[in-house]
Amino acid sequence: VARPHVVVVGAGFGGVGAVRRLARLPVDVTIVDRRNHHVFQPLLYQVATAGLNPSDIAQSVRGIFQDHENVEFRLASVEGVDFDRRLVHVDDGLPLVYDYLVLAPGSETRWFEIPGVEEHALPMKTVEDAIRLRGHVLGQFERAAADPSLIKEGALTFVIVGGGPTGVELAGAFVELFEKVLARDFHHLDVGLARVVLVELTDHLLGGFTPKSQRSALETLRARGVEVLLGHGVDKAEAGRVHLSDGDVIATSTLVWAAGIQPAPLTAATGLPLGPGGRIAVEPDLRLRERPEVFVIGDVAGARNRRGELYLQMASVALQQGHHVGRQIGRLVAGRDTRPFRYIEYGTMATIGRNAAVAELAFHIRLRGAPGWYAWLLVHLVRLMGFRNRLSVFFNWAWNYFTYDRSARLIIEVGKPASRRGRESGTGSHPPP
Amino acid sequence: VARPHVVVVGAGFGGVGAVRRLARLPVDVTIVDRRNHHVFQPLLYQVATAGLNPSDIAQSVRGIFQDHENVEFRLASVEGVDFDRRLVHVDDGLPLVYDYLVLAPGSETRWFEIPGVEEHALPMKTVEDAIRLRGHVLGQFERAAADPSLIKEGALTFVIVGGGPTGVELAGAFVELFEKVLARDFHHLDVGLARVVLVELTDHLLGGFTPKSQRSALETLRARGVEVLLGHGVDKAEAGRVHLSDGDVIATSTLVWAAGIQPAPLTAATGLPLGPGGRIAVEPDLRLRERPEVFVIGDVAGARNRRGELYLQMASVALQQGHHVGRQIGRLVAGRDTRPFRYIEYGTMATIGRNAAVAELAFHIRLRGAPGWYAWLLVHLVRLMGFRNRLSVFFNWAWNYFTYDRSARLIIEVGKPASRRGRESGTGSHPPP
Repeated sequence: VARPHVVVVGAGFGGVGAVRRLARLPVDVTIVDRRNHHVFQPLLYQVATAGLNPSDIAQSVRGIFQDHENVEFRLASVEGVDFDRRLVHVDDGLPLVYDYLVLAPGSETRWFEIPGVEEHALPMKTVEDAIRLRGHVLGQFERAAADPSLIKEGALTFVIVGGGPTGVELAGAFVELFEKVLARDFHHLDVGLARVVLVELTDHLLGGFTPKSQRSALETLRARGVEVLLGHGVDKAEAGRVHLSDGDVIATSTLVWAAGIQPAPLTAATGLPLGPGGRIAVEPDLRLRERPEVFVIGDVAGARNRRGELYLQMASVALQQGHHVGRQIGRLVAGRDTRPFRYIEYGTMATIGRNAAVAELAFHIRLRGAPGWYAWLLVHLVRLMGFRNRLSVFFNWAWNYFTYDRSARLIIEVGKPASRRGRESGTGSHPPP
Repeated sequence: VARPHVVVVGAGFGGVGAVRRLARLPVDVTIVDRRNHHVFQPLLYQVATAGLNPSDIAQSVRGIFQDHENVEFRLASVEGVDFDRRLVHVDDGLPLVYDYLVLAPGSETRWFEIPGVEEHALPMKTVEDAIRLRGHVLGQFERAAADPSLIKEGALTFVIVGGGPTGVELAGAFVELFEKVLARDFHHLDVGLARVVLVELTDHLLGGFTPKSQRSALETLRARGVEVLLGHGVDKAEAGRVHLSDGDVIATSTLVWAAGIQPAPLTAATGLPLGPGGRIAVEPDLRLRERPEVFVIGDVAGARNRRGELYLQMASVALQQGHHVGRQIGRLVAGRDTRPFRYIEYGTMATIGRNAAVAELAFHIRLRGAPGWYAWLLVHLVRLMGFRNRLSVFFNWAWNYFTYDRSARLIIEVGKPASRRGRESGTGSHPPP
């Protein structure tokens, strides 16, 4: 008897979560991604700030499923789906034939069509993005050390747009990197002249957190020296300058874009009807109404909670949806009915820097400051995949904490931004944190 | 009293070795390199084969000298030296004025003007080279998995040119990576079809080692499945093919070039008279005859041993020359005479893979097989700079040895080959292993 073939598009939290369940079922699985690795995106900012190595937070997909003979990996960009013939078309080689399809292509950076932003801003979605940002930031300090007159032109002004967890965590980590590490690296440069500016469109940081946590994050960041500009948008970016919505112009060599995401281009390329936010409408069990063999999960899925609201585009939602879909395919294969998806809220958290984080956990547990930070460390260690990565991250964190060192302050030249190539090649792959 | 200013060009073994001595002297030091990190090149092949992380073998130059206030770093390419005005010209910013100059620009890959080689072969000199080779090799297995018909076109044929330590170590590490790790990653690909071909022009591997060690390396490599072609040169490289000197053509997607090095372009750009091998003639104390304030060390120095032979272009020679020059500048500053350089031979070693290495140490100690391998591990751990890197490499080695895992099997896109940019920008930086 031929076993059903399940094709999973995307090796982010949703896709990998699904395959972890599917691997134990009597099915054959092919997981497709245009990168050969899964990225633990919540810690990407620590690669960008030299605290962790890429291999600490990225794992080869084949490595994850090495012990599961029924799981195969395909390195390719998915260009489209022929739902009638049950084919997934890829950029390179033969199409994949499926019995069940799980679409989890994730999202890409959203530039909001603001002039100059895509050209001049640095995104933070992939390992390459993080390595590039790390090298860029270290390079600005080198430029300023060689010629301090560049400081007033913005060589040491680091503007981050977007006050969500990525922006907040990056801002906090920048300040720490500059004050604790680079201040000792640069003997003849006044690192105190470096500015970190966090620009947020709304009047609060960390949308989705409670007002108390939002205020705590704001106060902590400001106390540590981050200039937080609430209620500010970006009108335009140019080489060396960013124009804010209130008319202010900031001279800067570094504009980091953490302001938003949008569904991967594959979402539109499927030809499926798109709902709010460009997300694909799904049934409560995460299947397509007209195509009961197709599941859609993660950032691109227009699934809604009991109150009828779209789920947030978060790692934990994608992961739980992946697990859910894996279980439902198991039920279908066993001749049973599917069940609706229910998200279990375990909490959200964001770190602001050494000994400071906000955590809002189940049972109304709210942690701030050092207790929040310890909770954050513990949860992220546990959620990392693989014993080796946990060990390595734990070692690096301990080392960095006690020595004020960051071992990975390397400038390594990486290829052109993946987000643009992604747009050309037709699929994103990883859901955001 | 103004302290003498010493400019050191190059942060390879020679340059960093010199600055480690100079840091303790009453001088100000500026070390210049076009990369922000020192690379422990003898372990570069382990980055290329996914066993180690870039940050395990590379350290930021500023980090190395963080505690020495009298040492400054400059990230720049050196374009030339004005010996009369004592100026070092860089590509970016003001020139550096020196009282003493240490030239240690190292070498770059030598292509021997063989048609197609520079265009089609992958060099192994920088961290970017190693990351690129790692991604390329993993990518070939992905291609072959998606379309096994590519195997007979050479997708899984890996040709390494050059039977020195780099070529031998890389060949051994490839076989191990393929058989022990990738064979478990690829469930539907016969990894046994992968070929590793090592091409060497002379009739022996590891020139410079004793015939017995050379034979041992050859036998071990062949026993492990490497096809060693002695007495073969390369006539031409094309996309997908390499033509050997005996007329044979090997279909291959991967040509690694470990066949030779040549002095960095800065060597010629200095306008100094060049001796054999394009190296700069120096006095026995490593100074220029006409410019007693200028020292030349490492791969570009035409220093000779007591038998009048040029020193081998090895890390240990460069390192000892760096230490020597640091000491001599100390003597000059103290009003004393310089002393001639003497190389102390502690031995050479090369690893062939798990439990196999050849080591030729002082006092005629010769080790092969497992004892040689343990000696190799120990010596390389000790020679690595920094406690953290030692700890991390030790952990990775132990993990890889016991689990047959390689954590860093990531395909990360890096910029264009640095060797070409190096040619444009005018200086190499690191001496070879």
